[in-house]
Amino acid sequence: MAFDPNQLLSQPPIETRQHITPKKVMLYALGVGAHELPFVYEDGLQALPGMAVIMAYPGFIWRDPQYGIDWTKILHGETSITCHAPLPVSGELIGKTSFGPIFDKGAAKGAVVYQTREIHHEDGTHVATVRNATFLRGDGGFGGTSEGQPAPHAIPDRPADLVHTLTTAENQALIYRLSGDMNPLHVDPEVAKAAGFPRPILHGLCTFGVAGRSLLAALADNDTARITRIDARFSAPVFPGETISTEIWHEGDGTAAFRSKVVERDLIVLNNGYVEFQ
Amino acid sequence: MAFDPNQLLSQPPIETRQHITPKKVMLYALGVGAHELPFVYEDGLQALPGMAVIMAYPGFIWRDPQYGIDWTKILHGETSITCHAPLPVSGELIGKTSFGPIFDKGAAKGAVVYQTREIHHEDGTHVATVRNATFLRGDGGFGGTSEGQPAPHAIPDRPADLVHTLTTAENQALIYRLSGDMNPLHVDPEVAKAAGFPRPILHGLCTFGVAGRSLLAALADNDTARITRIDARFSAPVFPGETISTEIWHEGDGTAAFRSKVVERDLIVLNNGYVEFQ
Repeated sequence: MAFDPNQLLSQPPIETRQHITPKKVMLYALGVGAHELPFVYEDGLQALPGMAVIMAYPGFIWRDPQYGIDWTKILHGETSITCHAPLPVSGELIGKTSFGPIFDKGAAKGAVVYQTREIHHEDGTHVATVRNATFLRGDGGFGGTSEGQPAPHAIPDRPADLVHTLTTAENQALIYRLSGDMNPLHVDPEVAKAAGFPRPILHGLCTFGVAGRSLLAALADNDTARITRIDARFSAPVFPGETISTEIWHEGDGTAAFRSKVVERDLIVLNNGYVEFQ
Repeated sequence: MAFDPNQLLSQPPIETRQHITPKKVMLYALGVGAHELPFVYEDGLQALPGMAVIMAYPGFIWRDPQYGIDWTKILHGETSITCHAPLPVSGELIGKTSFGPIFDKGAAKGAVVYQTREIHHEDGTHVATVRNATFLRGDGGFGGTSEGQPAPHAIPDRPADLVHTLTTAENQALIYRLSGDMNPLHVDPEVAKAAGFPRPILHGLCTFGVAGRSLLAALADNDTARITRIDARFSAPVFPGETISTEIWHEGDGTAAFRSKVVERDLIVLNNGYVEFQ
């Protein structure tokens, strides 16, 4: 069965539910390497903004055969989170995932599918919007358009205004995966080798969470309520144990551009980053 | 209300239930610093023997006012685990906790209460027996006997036959506590200071789990089914980040004595250890 973009575009939002607890909030924080008390202790607990990515997650299973997607060739391209309120540390969350737009980069490059997950708390609060762009490398050439894809946020051509560096632990992926993404690529050396990596890689969304910690520390004095949006593109994987350095450029009032590098390999792993803060 | 040992001795076993999942098994392993694949990956997952201590845990709440115990003065003295079968990685566990014997060391020293938790799997398997001795420092002098308390296992007066050393991470207690013992003593600097410690201490049972990993590696080639019993006395707390070195003395066939030290302070933290293995 071939990939049919209209099947995704026309389907009603997919609902997912997740019960959030303080333990899950602390486990996520430890999964992205946080150790500061407000993120790992139930007394005064705050959820890190990056946790939006796993709230009411995943909302969608690419390998569901009904969509005809070659899921072995998917790549997570971009993530954007908008926090409409401080993220909750307990209660039921309801996610509603819808699809579009979808771009066709041709049979050789694949398709790009945007998905948007609106997350509400059971008390009615609109908590967050999470938007992901996924490359379906095996599903291009369906006759769609490649025009109109959102442009990547530009990184200024000057030295960064701020640089914030965090280490990851050798067991970072082992902890992070307990928050939901159990893909064996992040733990099993054989699976990693079969995918072309010398050893298991860190989850892209874990790297995103580490960068989010740097943004929170450098721009918002670790006050989670002050970070309202984070966007980034995934450009290369991180290996657990590597050091992630996040460069930040101030732009307008309460906005900045950023990118993150692995220090050991001087390699950009998150690019075209954009953050809004108060 | 004064402490009445007969109330504990005469009460029917307290039943506790816990649903075990592979994620909980992996979280425990990460909590005691393990990173070996069989302990942190659902494919071929094995539960570390030390995990018995948190299975169907706690089985008893010392601060329950009905017992009249000065719970602010309790200290965990000894733990013994006997694994009757490989510990399960999923399913419902049923714990039954009973009390006794209880010893009276006098008003100045306190009481010593032994509790035994028999743990069964829902499929009927007798999984483990966990025995703890607790010092009730504020509840001695009730007219009981101090005679007959089990003697500590002797440590040979010669150099150890084996020494196995493991590090703990700065965030070790933060991970470990998510397995169930949320006592703020292990995370909150203010609570730790109020208890007389310069900073939060590692859970005694986390130290026990780290020593258990050393025993498993040194005596059983990391095959969890080969460790059938571990006993130890808690003699001093460990601070997260410290290095724990476990000395092992072979005794009879499949038995050994052990103790564990913090390398940085050359301080014995687990003493009078005894292990049975196959």
